[in-house]
Amino acid sequence: MKRKKIPDEAVRRLPIYLRGLLSLSEQGYENISSKKLADFVGVNHSQIRKDLSYFGGFGTPGIGYNTENLRRQIRKILKLSMVHKAALVGVGNLGLAVLRYPRFGIFGFHIVAAFDNNPKKIGRRVGNITIEDVSNLKALQQRKIKIGIITVPCEAAQETFDKLVAAGIKGILSFSPCYKKGRKKVKVITIDIAMDLARLPYYIATRPTTRLAKRGR
Amino acid sequence: MKRKKIPDEAVRRLPIYLRGLLSLSEQGYENISSKKLADFVGVNHSQIRKDLSYFGGFGTPGIGYNTENLRRQIRKILKLSMVHKAALVGVGNLGLAVLRYPRFGIFGFHIVAAFDNNPKKIGRRVGNITIEDVSNLKALQQRKIKIGIITVPCEAAQETFDKLVAAGIKGILSFSPCYKKGRKKVKVITIDIAMDLARLPYYIATRPTTRLAKRGR
Repeated sequence: MKRKKIPDEAVRRLPIYLRGLLSLSEQGYENISSKKLADFVGVNHSQIRKDLSYFGGFGTPGIGYNTENLRRQIRKILKLSMVHKAALVGVGNLGLAVLRYPRFGIFGFHIVAAFDNNPKKIGRRVGNITIEDVSNLKALQQRKIKIGIITVPCEAAQETFDKLVAAGIKGILSFSPCYKKGRKKVKVITIDIAMDLARLPYYIATRPTTRLAKRGR
Repeated sequence: MKRKKIPDEAVRRLPIYLRGLLSLSEQGYENISSKKLADFVGVNHSQIRKDLSYFGGFGTPGIGYNTENLRRQIRKILKLSMVHKAALVGVGNLGLAVLRYPRFGIFGFHIVAAFDNNPKKIGRRVGNITIEDVSNLKALQQRKIKIGIITVPCEAAQETFDKLVAAGIKGILSFSPCYKKGRKKVKVITIDIAMDLARLPYYIATRPTTRLAKRGR
């Protein structure tokens, strides 16, 4: 099947729509207009329509989208309808927080392995997972784990990245912006908390009091 | 001063450019083309030019951007040239990780207070900060703290959100997607780790082997 090239920005918004649809579905909505979905997720409704049009539309004029169907379609597009096994490297505070994060399951993710280089941590259990020595990373391919999560400190990020790539990992979610450019055949998504925080003052400072109610989020 | 309405997406990318400029500056670049900056930060160069044009351009044809000047301008636009005090609520694993995150300082952020409702944690020190009882949140306004960071579990998110708003907080970075819509006069940026992870399978699954080297990140 040939696919149009879809902008990364559209792919970035699809999980946001999916999360919104899950909530709206729980609230009992069977159908939903792009405007209602737009209000709920905080994205412009023409943007939503444009994003979904890359994949074929799915809406019915006058009725809108069927929430159940749209959910299923987005899951399919994002390949979330199957289970994805992930391995986490770096069981510090951040790693523990990610291991205990309750919301991965709804998208089909299972963190099935965790690694650290600290002998005091190796062998300890977190939930169902026993922390392993990083030397075990080599075996990820045999274990059919294709997603890696990096929660190590900055100075260990590059080495961890290289090890994950060598172990056949295809996609990495990294909480460390500290490695140099990676390998082209691995998709890396970086969460740099400081980047998100850095947007806040702009909104706080430029918002005149009288327009508060209008501009919203 | 009147300002054009700047799309949130452009504001979202400015810190990414700033981070890139900081690195390029450290590497000794005095001037830089939009193309070089584009390669470095992984955003299309026409997009970069468009984003910067909202604020007036700053480039010189044939030379590009002066890294030092552009850095200063972006900091000014984002209001990052002043110090911003932030308070964190919820000192679990995630809260500890955020408190110890080393990269806030470069953007002028200082987390100056941390709160929890667990008596065992109250009074304990993390770095320079002594964990306080959440009942102290009321005093944030007197302490001139305008930014809040929410790292509490899902079920405590709404209450924390309401308390921060009542305490005069103007901007919130939240790691919990679990509260209902907030107040319109507070800017909220939510980091939902699962949303970022949910994009990975799309890239892993749709990337044909022969095109690997081309598509990159």
